[in-house]
Amino acid sequence: MDHLEPRSRSRDEALARDAADPLRHLRERFELPDGVVYLDGNSLGALPRAAKDRVAATVSREWGRGLIGSWNEAGWVDLPARVGAKIGRLVGAEDGSLVATDSTSVNLFKVLAAALALAPGRRGVVSEASNFPTDLYMVEGLAALAGQGHELRLAQDPEHIEAMLDGDVAVLMLTHVNYRTGRMHDMAALTKAAQERGILTVWDLAHSAGAVPVDLADARADFAVGCGYKYLNGGPGAPAFLYVSPRHWARAAQPLSGWFGHAAPFRFDVGYAPAEGVRRFLTGTPSVIGMSALDAALDVWDDVEMARLREKSVALCEAFIEGVEARCAGLGLTLASPREAHRRGSQVSFTHEAAYAVMQALIERGVVGDFRAPDILRFGFTPLYTRFVDVADAVEVLRDVLESRAYEAERFQARRAVT
Amino acid sequence: MDHLEPRSRSRDEALARDAADPLRHLRERFELPDGVVYLDGNSLGALPRAAKDRVAATVSREWGRGLIGSWNEAGWVDLPARVGAKIGRLVGAEDGSLVATDSTSVNLFKVLAAALALAPGRRGVVSEASNFPTDLYMVEGLAALAGQGHELRLAQDPEHIEAMLDGDVAVLMLTHVNYRTGRMHDMAALTKAAQERGILTVWDLAHSAGAVPVDLADARADFAVGCGYKYLNGGPGAPAFLYVSPRHWARAAQPLSGWFGHAAPFRFDVGYAPAEGVRRFLTGTPSVIGMSALDAALDVWDDVEMARLREKSVALCEAFIEGVEARCAGLGLTLASPREAHRRGSQVSFTHEAAYAVMQALIERGVVGDFRAPDILRFGFTPLYTRFVDVADAVEVLRDVLESRAYEAERFQARRAVT
Repeated sequence: MDHLEPRSRSRDEALARDAADPLRHLRERFELPDGVVYLDGNSLGALPRAAKDRVAATVSREWGRGLIGSWNEAGWVDLPARVGAKIGRLVGAEDGSLVATDSTSVNLFKVLAAALALAPGRRGVVSEASNFPTDLYMVEGLAALAGQGHELRLAQDPEHIEAMLDGDVAVLMLTHVNYRTGRMHDMAALTKAAQERGILTVWDLAHSAGAVPVDLADARADFAVGCGYKYLNGGPGAPAFLYVSPRHWARAAQPLSGWFGHAAPFRFDVGYAPAEGVRRFLTGTPSVIGMSALDAALDVWDDVEMARLREKSVALCEAFIEGVEARCAGLGLTLASPREAHRRGSQVSFTHEAAYAVMQALIERGVVGDFRAPDILRFGFTPLYTRFVDVADAVEVLRDVLESRAYEAERFQARRAVT
Repeated sequence: MDHLEPRSRSRDEALARDAADPLRHLRERFELPDGVVYLDGNSLGALPRAAKDRVAATVSREWGRGLIGSWNEAGWVDLPARVGAKIGRLVGAEDGSLVATDSTSVNLFKVLAAALALAPGRRGVVSEASNFPTDLYMVEGLAALAGQGHELRLAQDPEHIEAMLDGDVAVLMLTHVNYRTGRMHDMAALTKAAQERGILTVWDLAHSAGAVPVDLADARADFAVGCGYKYLNGGPGAPAFLYVSPRHWARAAQPLSGWFGHAAPFRFDVGYAPAEGVRRFLTGTPSVIGMSALDAALDVWDDVEMARLREKSVALCEAFIEGVEARCAGLGLTLASPREAHRRGSQVSFTHEAAYAVMQALIERGVVGDFRAPDILRFGFTPLYTRFVDVADAVEVLRDVLESRAYEAERFQARRAVT
């Protein structure tokens, strides 16, 4: 077999791994375009067939024929809790402690405000400079409005976080898996370190929910938020989610106190009275069509064991890193993700000095990852629908783009609105 | 013709009015269930055929096949501004001064916070006790968070509002058309009265946009919000909207400062820098599927003149009131809406001591309005798809339910979650 190109040999190996993959049947639950290797499920998850059918039914039958009656008959009024319960099972939330609602940014504002109110007199909100920016922006906006001198304290290096947790810190707010590098924090250890100093934790699970095992209850997390449109495949701009530990239900209050968080929204009382539990963190009327898509998308997980998913995720990421190391050496790539699998989420990032143009050239050739400023090529691996052969093909296309310097073509230079 | 029942005569007259209605063709743009007289478009607008097709295309083609590339190629990133521009034309907003985003409650929080910051030292937020409750709840939540002693001052009678506008009032926050009674404020006059005392106005257009003529620019309104799922027919939980007068663009800041309101969201800067104009009032990732439904629903208005729509709205409401006066006298109904058309939106409400059960009995007979606690029967008239024959039929069914006391049946007594 020595005459075979390494390319073909590794592709055959990949096909063999796919044939032996216990999760291979899950790919059929998604609609994926032909000729595309989609490695951007960490930005927008692919379309589950069930979500497509459900949206059509929600629009035609529930809205079109059921009209206003569907708030009761189709259970629209319970969607935030029902969808929340499905997400809760994926991230180890206690029963009734998680709701689907609003956007991640809006939810972060709510839980941050609740957390700061539970830690009076403390001024610090510790996070990372490399956190997803909207998380930091929401702290800025909240601190300015609350006017109590809260300040964002940013670790430049994740290893410095623990040393920043002192008695003046109210909240430790971290994204569990870094959006750029895929680096994963030890949630249980950092939560413990924070709580030993009287600090509340707010975890952003945008790149964790549906990607890596998470156990909020076991980690004793205080608050969490996350995204519905990445690894949960809820569709573009899907409703986000929000978790509040049952320990805080009695005392936690949030400022976006809209009617869906009222104890009796349809009594139309003049004064606000918060609902019991996490429901008080709801605000306005839920986005029913988007919520229905997410609800159906979550059924994909019914028979998925998170441990099996994680095994495949690690195997896909390892195969990609090893493939790039073997085939793209000397072509200007530097691994930006941790090399050790246990410190990494379900993505792999490389830096390259022409990262933007390289990604455009890859996309033109059907390998879809994304670019993150200033110099990161980001590849997400969604074990539900990504195959080992996709990894093998992506490596070869990447090698080809780099070796041929195809990315230097002018058409790949101009930036677009979203990349 | 004297031997004809009044019922039949008025039904024939109604059919003749429908035949002469210059807007009658618009009904074909909606999918409406057979056998239902739908008078609840003020709670949830009916399904526009174009919205159904558009949602299917957004899901299958844009999400399913276009995947992440659709943020650019399908223009998802511009949806808040594009949909906002369509709504802006219906409510007289200046170019670029209105965006579609989030829920009405969340948007109210943003514009209220911006308005209060523009009126330092003033403590009052004047509104009405009969305003839609979530509007009042949002003021409560904001005032508690901001901690600057802001307080809600509620007029018990709309005629008292102007006298409450003194030098300690920061904001006058009103819903233009009352959700229960349909009573409509004089937006221009109240805005002028407020501004003469240095008070900023926040108008909630939930029951106005697409229902009555509104001219925000002409009225010199400062801020406004509104709902996408009532008279705009954007679907259950559709994105809401938000208006900021160009006079305030340079100085207005809002606390829900998420990445979509950043000057350069995809530069991923650590610090927040607000976008120009109203775009700084965006927060998280837009809800693309819901936004697409609303976008298509708004195309229904392309050739609709608001003056013609208002004429028909008034005629429908008048026909209903006259019909009830003629056919339901002595059956326990009292008009709760203003009798003069110019003081009324596009709905008619009656009180009845058994209002909840009466509405359930009406719904069972295919006449769908809604109940608002404690004793209001609410009927919305959407001129885009409501016919005069619907009005005539609704009057007769109402008479029948009341005269037969059918509403006393036990099955109509038990309250449901949403009514």
